[in-house]
Order: sequence, then C-alpha cells, then structure tokens
Amino acid sequence: MTQLVGGVVPPVCTPLTAERELDVPSLERLAAFLLDAGVHGLFVTGSTGEVAYLPDDVRYRALDVVAGVAAGQVPVLAGVIDTTTPRVIEHARAAEAAGADALVATAPFYVPTHPSEFGGHFRAIRAAVDLPLVAYDIPSSVGSKLPTDVVADLAEDGTIVALKDSSGDLDGLRAVLESTEADGFRCFSGSETLADLGLFIGAHGLVPGIGNVDPHGYLRLFDAAGRADWDTARAEQARLRRLFRMIRVGGTRMGPYSSAIGAFKEGLRARGVIASATTSRPMIPLNDTERAAVRRRLDEAGLL
Amino acid sequence: MTQLVGGVVPPVCTPLTAERELDVPSLERLAAFLLDAGVHGLFVTGSTGEVAYLPDDVRYRALDVVAGVAAGQVPVLAGVIDTTTPRVIEHARAAEAAGADALVATAPFYVPTHPSEFGGHFRAIRAAVDLPLVAYDIPSSVGSKLPTDVVADLAEDGTIVALKDSSGDLDGLRAVLESTEADGFRCFSGSETLADLGLFIGAHGLVPGIGNVDPHGYLRLFDAAGRADWDTARAEQARLRRLFRMIRVGGTRMGPYSSAIGAFKEGLRARGVIASATTSRPMIPLNDTERAAVRRRLDEAGLL
Amino acid sequence: MTQLVGGVVPPVCTPLTAERELDVPSLERLAAFLLDAGVHGLFVTGSTGEVAYLPDDVRYRALDVVAGVAAGQVPVLAGVIDTTTPRVIEHARAAEAAGADALVATAPFYVPTHPSEFGGHFRAIRAAVDLPLVAYDIPSSVGSKLPTDVVADLAEDGTIVALKDSSGDLDGLRAVLESTEADGFRCFSGSETLADLGLFIGAHGLVPGIGNVDPHGYLRLFDAAGRADWDTARAEQARLRRLFRMIRVGGTRMGPYSSAIGAFKEGLRARGVIASATTSRPMIPLNDTERAAVRRRLDEAGLL
Amino acid sequence: MTQLVGGVVPPVCTPLTAERELDVPSLERLAAFLLDAGVHGLFVTGSTGEVAYLPDDVRYRALDVVAGVAAGQVPVLAGVIDTTTPRVIEHARAAEAAGADALVATAPFYVPTHPSEFGGHFRAIRAAVDLPLVAYDIPSSVGSKLPTDVVADLAEDGTIVALKDSSGDLDGLRAVLESTEADGFRCFSGSETLADLGLFIGAHGLVPGIGNVDPHGYLRLFDAAGRADWDTARAEQARLRRLFRMIRVGGTRMGPYSSAIGAFKEGLRARGVIASATTSRPMIPLNDTERAAVRRRLDEAGLL
Repeated sequence: MTQLVGGVVPPVCTPLTAERELDVPSLERLAAFLLDAGVHGLFVTGSTGEVAYLPDDVRYRALDVVAGVAAGQVPVLAGVIDTTTPRVIEHARAAEAAGADALVATAPFYVPTHPSEFGGHFRAIRAAVDLPLVAYDIPSSVGSKLPTDVVADLAEDGTIVALKDSSGDLDGLRAVLESTEADGFRCFSGSETLADLGLFIGAHGLVPGIGNVDPHGYLRLFDAAGRADWDTARAEQARLRRLFRMIRVGGTRMGPYSSAIGAFKEGLRARGVIASATTSRPMIPLNDTERAAVRRRLDEAGLL
Repeated sequence: MTQLVGGVVPPVCTPLTAERELDVPSLERLAAFLLDAGVHGLFVTGSTGEVAYLPDDVRYRALDVVAGVAAGQVPVLAGVIDTTTPRVIEHARAAEAAGADALVATAPFYVPTHPSEFGGHFRAIRAAVDLPLVAYDIPSSVGSKLPTDVVADLAEDGTIVALKDSSGDLDGLRAVLESTEADGFRCFSGSETLADLGLFIGAHGLVPGIGNVDPHGYLRLFDAAGRADWDTARAEQARLRRLFRMIRVGGTRMGPYSSAIGAFKEGLRARGVIASATTSRPMIPLNDTERAAVRRRLDEAGLL
Repeated sequence: MTQLVGGVVPPVCTPLTAERELDVPSLERLAAFLLDAGVHGLFVTGSTGEVAYLPDDVRYRALDVVAGVAAGQVPVLAGVIDTTTPRVIEHARAAEAAGADALVATAPFYVPTHPSEFGGHFRAIRAAVDLPLVAYDIPSSVGSKLPTDVVADLAEDGTIVALKDSSGDLDGLRAVLESTEADGFRCFSGSETLADLGLFIGAHGLVPGIGNVDPHGYLRLFDAAGRADWDTARAEQARLRRLFRMIRVGGTRMGPYSSAIGAFKEGLRARGVIASATTSRPMIPLNDTERAAVRRRLDEAGLL
Repeated sequence: MTQLVGGVVPPVCTPLTAERELDVPSLERLAAFLLDAGVHGLFVTGSTGEVAYLPDDVRYRALDVVAGVAAGQVPVLAGVIDTTTPRVIEHARAAEAAGADALVATAPFYVPTHPSEFGGHFRAIRAAVDLPLVAYDIPSSVGSKLPTDVVADLAEDGTIVALKDSSGDLDGLRAVLESTEADGFRCFSGSETLADLGLFIGAHGLVPGIGNVDPHGYLRLFDAAGRADWDTARAEQARLRRLFRMIRVGGTRMGPYSSAIGAFKEGLRARGVIASATTSRPMIPLNDTERAAVRRRLDEAGLL
C-alpha cells in the first residue's frame, strides 16, 4: 500500500453520463490524466466528487475504477462521508473492500455534536477499519469546526495521520501544524486560491478541486514552494486564481456548488478528458452562455 | 393505506440493545404503547429516532417493525433523510418496500443548495416513489430554511401533502398556513414547548419528541385545542414544558442531542416501555446522576 | 411619573424634513395621533425611531417633544441605545433630563460580550440613573441573546422592571414569563405579526413598529386578548399581518430596514400624520412605485 | 499632514486610571514608546483602544493627546466608530478638530445594511469631512463583510484611500489587492497571527493589537517581509504567535475581548509603559493568576 506523504492530491470529479449514470470510461481517462500530470495521490468521493449526491453503489464503483487505474502508483483516498459514526463505518468497510489506501472522514453532521464527541467518532472509525484515517475539516458542510486540541489529540495517539483543511481558517491550520510538528502528522490545504499560503505556513499538500482541470498548475505551484521559490509560487497562484473565477459562472440563478461543479466538469469536457458535463440532481445545470464563459477562462489560462 | 390528516404523530424513538443493535421487542412495545394512547400516526426514522445514526438496514427494519404493529390502524410515516436527491430516492424506495404510508424528506444538506433547487429535489422524490410526501423543515440540521413560497408552490401542485415544521419560526409557519389554506395542505409543528401556539395558529398536528414518553399529555393538549379550550391547552402545555426540561440533564458535558435522546430513552425505560436507554455512537451516554434526574422529572409529572 | 404596566406602546417613528432635520410639528402630530388612539405608553428613540441614525441632540429633542405632548398621560420610554455601559450611561443621563419616565437598554454590541458581563452592564446603568430600566432583547441588532437566567436574576433583584422582547423566540419569552411571575415583572412583545401569541402566553404589552400607522388595530387586538376573545384577537392579527406586508415593498434593491421604515413613514404621510416620508442616510428611499404599493396596502386595510 | 503609506500602525490602547478616567500621562508614554520603536502611524480609538466603551469626550481627548505626542512625525488615524452615517459624521468632525490625519470608519451596524447602501455611507462621510478615509472591514463587530466590489469602487473613485482588514478573510483581502493595484490604494492587515501572510500577498501595512506591547517584533517582521526574507518573517511571526496566546488568559469566565484587552494592558503595565491595567465596564477584569500568566508570556518572549 502506498503512503500518503504530501503533494497534490486532487479531489477527483465523478463523471456522469447524460442519464446520470457513472461514466466509467470518462472516470478512467480522468484518473489517467491526473496521474500523467504527476499528482501525488487521488481523493475519490470527496465533496468535489459529488459524494453527497452519489448512491452507495456509485461511490464504491467510482473508487474501484480509480483504484484500478492508480494500481498502487499513488495512494487512493476515499471520502467516507455520512452523518455519524455507524453510517461512516459502513462506508469505511465498503471503501476498504473497493481498494482505498486511506479514509477521509468529517465530523458528524445533521445532528449537533459536542467537541467531546468528536474524539469518539474518529476513534471508533479507526478501530473498525484498519486503514490510515484522515480528518476532514469542512465547517461549511458539517456546521462545526474541528478544534485544534481535538485534532492534536487524535494526531498524537495515532488515530488520524493527516488533516484535510477546508475550513479557510489559516490561523487554525497554523495552530494544528504547530501542535503536531513532532508526530509526522500531515496537513493538506483544501483551498484553491490560498494554496501558496498553505504551503508557506508548512502544509504538506494540496487538495484543490480545480486541480481536476489544471493539475499541472498546482504541481508547478507545489514544486516552487518546495524550493522556497515564493515569487514563482505566487505568480502561479495568481494565474490559478484567475482560472478559478470560472466557479462563479452560474451567478445567482443557482447554488455556488452547482456553479462550481458544473464549471469543473465543463472544463474537463472542453479539455477532452470527460464526455459530458452532467451533474447530479437537484443541481441546476449550466446553460450554453455559462459553459462558453468557462471555456473562455480555460482559453485565457492557455488550457485549450 | 391510511391517510395523514393531523393529530399527534410522535417521532418514534429507536430502542437499541446494550450492544447497539436494534431492540425489536422494545420497539414493538413502544409502538403499541403509543397506539394504545391514541396517537394519530407514527413517524419512524425521524431525527428523534436517531435516523442520522442508523445504518440503512436498521432504518428499514425499524420501519418494518412499526408498520407491522400499526397494521393500518394509523399512517406510518418514514423519514427518508439523506444529503441529496439521488440518495433520498434510494431511501424512499426502500421505505415503500418496508411498508411506509408516507415519506418525510428534508431539504438537501452537506452541500449548499439554492432555493431554486429545492423544488427540483422534492419533485424528483415524488416522481420516483408514489407515496404522499411531507416536507420536513429543520434548518438547525440542514442549514437552510424552506422558504414559504417554495412550500406553497409544492403544496399547490400536489408535490407535497404536508409540512413538518421544526424551524421554530411560528411566523413562517403562519405564512405557510395562510398560503396553503385552499389546498387541503396539512401542517405539523415539531415543537414540544410551543405546541399549543402551533395549534392556536391553525396547525393540524404535532410531532413532539417527548411525545414518546408522554403521549397522553400531547393528546390531551390536542383535544383541548380542538374544542378551543385554550386554558386547558395552555395548562397542559405548561406541564409538558416542565417535563421537557429533562432534555438538559446532560448539561454542558455532551451535545444537546445526546442529552435529549438519552433523556427520552431513560424516560421510556423508567416507564417500562423499552429495555435499555442505550444511544448510538458517538453520543455520550447519560450517567447515573443524570438518569436519576430524568426519573425525578417523570415523577413530578406523575408518570412513574 | 406614570408607570409602565402593559398595553400597546408603539416605538415612535422620528419624522424628518426633506433636509433630514427633525420635523417637530410632525412628531407632535404623531404623538398626539397615538395618544388619541389610546396607546398605553410611547417608546421614543427605539429601533423603529431610527435611533441608530440620530445624532445625540436629535435623540434628546425628539424625546423632549414627545414627553411634552404626553404630559404625564402615559409613560414615555427612551431608548438609550449605544455600544457599551459608559456610553449608554451618558444617554441615560440625557434622557432623564429630557423627560423620560423609563429607559430601554440593549445588551452591549460591537464588542463580543460574555453572558456574565450582561449583569454588570444593566446594574451599572440602573445605579447611574434613577429611572425604571427595561431590558431590550434584540439579537438581530446586537448579536447576542439575553439568556433567561440573566433576565430572571435582573428581574428578581429589581435592576430591570420589564423586558422588551424582539428576539422572535417565543419559547424564550415564555421561559422568562415563567421565571418572573412572582416579581411583578412585565414583558412586552416586539413582534408585529405574532402579537396575539405573545399575549396568549402571558405577555403584558406590545411594542409594534407598524403600530405607528395603525394603533387602533393593535389596541383592538390587545383588548380582545384581555377578555380572552381569541377569535377576535386572531382575526385582528390576520388583518395586521396583511397590512404589515408593506415592509417588503423595497424588495431586494435595499436593506429590509430601509424598506420597513420607509413604508411606515409613507403610511404615516399618506394618513396625513407626518409631512414627509424622508428617512436617514444611508438608507435608500422608496421610489414612487413602492410608495404607491404602501398606499394600496393602507387602502386594503381601510386606513385611507 | 503626514501621509499614510504603510508599515506598522498599532491600534493604540487607551490607558485608564483605577477610577476609569483617561490616564493622560500613561497615554503620552504609550504613544512615545511606540514612536520610539519606529512605528509608521498611530491608530487611535480603534477596537483595541476600547472605542466602543469610550464616551465621546474621552475619545477626542485621547486623540488630542496622541496627536500632540506624534506632532506630525507619523500620521494619526482616528477611528470614527458609530452605528450609521449621521452619527459617524459627527465623530468625523470632532476627530478632525482634535487633530486626526485620517479617519477610519466601519460599515453601519446595529441596523442591517444592504451592500448597495455601503457606498452611500462612505461617500457621505468623505463628503462631510475633508480627510483621507480608511474603510474598516470588521464583520465580527458589525455583522456584515464589505464586498470586494464595493471596496474596489470606493477605491477607484477616491472615496477611500485604504482598507483595514480585520475580517480574517485572506482570500477576500487578496481580491481587494488585485482589484485596486492600479489605484495607489493601501491595504492593512488587522491580524496579529497571520501578519506575515498579509504581507506575503501584498498588504502594505499591519495594525496589530499586540503591537502595543511588542512593537519591535512587528517592525522586525515588517522589515523582513520588505526584503523578501520570508524565513525571518515567519520566525518572528512564530515568536509573536506564542506571545499572542496571552489573550486567552481569561479562559471561559469572561468574554474574549475582556481577556485580550486586559492582557494587552497588563503587558503594558508590566513593561512600565502605563500605570494601570484597568479596563472599561462591563468588562470583567483579569485576576492575579491571570495577570501573572500574562507576565510569564512576556518573560518567555524576552520582554521583561
């Protein structure tokens, strides 16, 4: 089993056919496209992968497909996203069977959960399935922030090996990095637009949604940061920030998630990687004007 | 199939054994206890039923058990609670197979969803499974409030037959009642402590979590409201408000949900209805002192 | 000095000239209009009175004008609205000098304040100025909710004589009423649309913003509730709910406050009470179409 | 009049006597201490200066004292913090008279304000008083975030010359920097713990509250960033992050603001700059144990 040490680990999109079935050939092409670019891992069934929209069987087939393409070259992480411990454990078992190298779990959601209950949640998942566990901090989705001391405790006793931080709270991420320095613990920034800052403060890797569309850009950024060439890192980040504006093409007539996922998928379609930009229900699809705006962004970024 | 017209419809607790397996005999006793009291329906796998903690198979077994006990005497509603449309539809199909008379679905959660996407969500569920659909408005769990005009539109075109309002927003509930008066639409208040106010403004029924423990109290309240005997309704509500304070026995050492569900289950255990007060992981269980405090509340309310 | 015991106490609008100076004759007419209707008190420099927009000298002149018209017939309450204790005390002294019969103060705002600091805040105000003090619970403006136990403690030791509840939390208001029953403490609901519910649960009075425009409606509602004629109270409330929709005439092109205050003032202008519907900066004024919509609402309510 | 171009501009604490009067000699010593350290400006009556607690006359005396000590060596900025336009303009006039070189104003608060009303607010202030105007983005205090496009518009037409960003949103700050590059517009980060990141992305200056206690540290950080010596900047930031933990000495028995301001003032007292650590009402004061903890932090940082 390959180990998760850092680098660029895109949250892989889940291509769908026009009938909203899993598009296996497209997913295979996408995984291959990312591997060819040189990514350091693949994160399947994450938020960008529409995990919240995928029925269980689609989740595990997607994971199985990507694990097959990765074939041990890089670690494949599986998002085991569900409301609470017993349901997450079911996913964890299925993900292990489908070939995951590591699991990524959030704090419980739907039900308000006390900080003192977070520890029990992650420890029970870790005890149930013998795979490295990554804590996924995404308060905008789950309604609570993982406190620094909870993460530090779970890192210290080995329950979790890494944090994926999608909280946008760089102060908190810095505090986690300071608290876990001695443990070989790994931190990944989930920000597309502040990836350079994440690396500047010591994060070990990146999980950028738009890294599906432009993995090479994030790899250049990561490499520049690795040699402390901050001018290059910042310039690459500036280019990626402009590209990232594509997520707002849907404006106010749909949710921000519908607009962002629609844009990523149209970007992958326009680049010839996947066959269709179809998204899950009830997301509103991009219209022709909006799709053209996505392609303009790609063109400006030299990606067409 | 029995029809949902109003009345007291408790969100049935899901009894667990000490090993956290579904306790079928206890669930049968609980359903019978509620039916004997005279409730007008049973709502299985709702928030009080720990739906967010139950693996799929436990959800459907619980539903099957309750439907078996109800045997068509009252409608059995099934919560089909999951993040988005495709996943909810899977639950809806399974709930239909397990004997549900109606389905209860929330707005999407985990992913931010635009008001314009709510309609598509409920319409797709309704189209997939031919059972009456109830919209469940619970912003504290899902992070968004169903707007009045969305509910009114869905009521008008027959997508939904009822609203379960757990938003605490009586002004909004009143607006829905005003907008849907002509449609035979039904509104249920999910409040334990303002149930009299819900009925005062015209709601047709109640879904009180603590109605598991004291169904007779809510039935007296409902009957008094039905004959516009507001003094009696208010006095009964005052008694139930005192009883309801049991939900805070866990204080600040656990989440409010752990405390409330723990208290309801200890109440049912103390009244001889279920065998164990075990709750799901990662909820922190009540300790002996806290359980004794629950029993004191029951005693004061004349329920022991 | 007249005492505050309950009833309808409108938060008096502050009429401005087209040049945004205090319009004294209009304010005198407004105070007289409300007194003629039979209101039980007048609340000057409250949120509806644009207190947050009025320079200090305008606040005290407005108070002085209203106190002059009231002339001891009903109590005149002065909002002493500012960020923290020392600044509120300055206002309290000036309000006393300008003829206030009672003071209305919120929790501190702008700076996050701990519940344990609320007590010190109200006690210091009460100690500084010897006037009855009313706590004003308005979390939407100040960012924190006065906890029930804080209000109960301040009621018990006599620091505050009343609560004006603009929190929209009827459960919390009910808890305060239950906790302070023995103290002669008075609770006022600040809701325009759930005033009947406030009185149903035992509140002693109402502070409805749109009571400026239709004081007679709220007085009828209050009287009906006083004789437990809930059908009449509810019907009057339904009429007032329709009238209250005027607050949304500004739609999404301005803030909700600009729309509501603009509508109240246009309503008062159309009824011949004040000379101009001018509001403070930076509020966006209603346009001709929106003002016509206000007048249509008045017409439907039989107020023109 | 001296111009605001960037650098370290501490938000000056307002020393109080034990009787909570302005302690003028202490304030003079504090201003001199900061000037001696080499700060590039002084920001009086900001949030750290307890502006929300200071009666008007104390605000302007504090400003007058600091302007006197600064004597044109560096620009003196005055916070004109109040709820809405007319009240802010009153402060702006008084601040001009008391010697301010520039004004710092927030978005309106207490009343919900529409983004379209922000522009009118800042433009009216700028039109009323002929001093450079700085927009102060502090959503935690005022409840709304200044949108990037509003700031960019106000920068472009010259209404504002700078932004003080206390939003914690580095992505937003970056967007403002990108949008205003051509305008000679200046951005200041209000973060104590991510100051290096602010400078890394191009901010022109820092406004760190704990810069009262350790101005030399922030000046070293600023200078290192200026020569792109990021290792030194980051190391200095790490030292300042440890020092900054002093703001939590009050734990959960008081508000975070009481704890932070109490710690800054105890730090200044322990360093011999001011005479007393007294804070305004209703803030709970630090106790002896907590004050000793502050001094330990100073000692560890080599500041005693």
